[in-house]
Amino acid sequence: MRIDIISCVPRLLDSYFDHSILKRAKEAGHAQVIIHDLRDYSENKHRQVDDYAFGGGAGMVLGIEPIAKCIRHLQSFRIYDEILYMTPDGDVFDQRTANRLSMTKNLIILCGHYKGIDERVREHFITKEVSIGDYVLSGGELPAAVVSDAIIRLIPGVLNDETSALTDSFQDNLLAPPVYTRPAEFEGLKVPEILLSGHEKKINDWRLEQSIKRTQERRPDLLK
Amino acid sequence: MRIDIISCVPRLLDSYFDHSILKRAKEAGHAQVIIHDLRDYSENKHRQVDDYAFGGGAGMVLGIEPIAKCIRHLQSFRIYDEILYMTPDGDVFDQRTANRLSMTKNLIILCGHYKGIDERVREHFITKEVSIGDYVLSGGELPAAVVSDAIIRLIPGVLNDETSALTDSFQDNLLAPPVYTRPAEFEGLKVPEILLSGHEKKINDWRLEQSIKRTQERRPDLLK
Repeated sequence: MRIDIISCVPRLLDSYFDHSILKRAKEAGHAQVIIHDLRDYSENKHRQVDDYAFGGGAGMVLGIEPIAKCIRHLQSFRIYDEILYMTPDGDVFDQRTANRLSMTKNLIILCGHYKGIDERVREHFITKEVSIGDYVLSGGELPAAVVSDAIIRLIPGVLNDETSALTDSFQDNLLAPPVYTRPAEFEGLKVPEILLSGHEKKINDWRLEQSIKRTQERRPDLLK
Repeated sequence: MRIDIISCVPRLLDSYFDHSILKRAKEAGHAQVIIHDLRDYSENKHRQVDDYAFGGGAGMVLGIEPIAKCIRHLQSFRIYDEILYMTPDGDVFDQRTANRLSMTKNLIILCGHYKGIDERVREHFITKEVSIGDYVLSGGELPAAVVSDAIIRLIPGVLNDETSALTDSFQDNLLAPPVYTRPAEFEGLKVPEILLSGHEKKINDWRLEQSIKRTQERRPDLLK
């Protein structure tokens, strides 16, 4: 799988993709993330990619020209399954969408910044608008990293233990059960005895029961 | 405002806090984010901070000892308003929470990694569990950056134009209206004429109407 991220501040993302499981995913040939500097596609001698909003108001807007040029350049090399735009008014991203996108081959993720991007880009170039949640950030860079991480870790072979992702929250509409590790006692706080019992069947039953209980208490909406 | 982030892979976040508006916020004295390496608090000669889960199963778990030591060390210097743990089964983060947290003085954000953290940390040290959305990531580092960014940009003085955050999506339970910038025409695609009219009142009316329309179409739940 290949993800091309387009950003006007690409350096924001450098260390994330250089150090996380995404680095391992790249080295093992499972997925690569390539970050493109939108300013490389500016026709302006100052490499400017944003301008004031028509009609006035606070905040700069990314223009259609460099974005169109960058997307078309990428499209001249390969066919993209989706061209995503990260925006708080997009479809809210969830594990189901992550599962679906993890099965695609080529994705472009466009990051907004400042006040957003020219609406004509959204209407004519973007195939899917995605929000990672109901809050506003200073740009789409963190959301692009979130989506890339959520997707790539699901590709078989990326996690050390393939069963690990299957026991995560949301994969079966249940929250994950509590986990414990050594020491078995810390300042009088003890691990539940069942986990030290060695009875695999009883432990699995306890975990499922805890998952259901936790989901009922915290996120009853997931059980509907 | 001060945010202390505790992580076992602190380098993931380096470039984000070195290049974003968070850097400007720090230089202007509005907010600082300090990232702590959990491994510095390990008693183990290999600086190990994780171990197998009691009861078996895939994925490593961060232990209570280094986390307790790190949190207590930070607490010896100042009082924290909240100690957040980023986890997919936490309270779902939204703009209202961002507004509230932007008025606090000192925050700790603990990032999980691998399969999670020992449940006893959650029960005895954490004051608020936060999820940035219904999906699973490889660690809490990106979520910690998301929360920090959402909060810090709301602190007066951090954004160049203070009115900018007020016209963002969610601040008034409405999605933001479309924005446009130059050129006024691109390959036959034109900017709405009203935005070129210079009538401030009509432009504001149009924007409000577009915000309401967009919210009705995309997120009717916000209008309830």
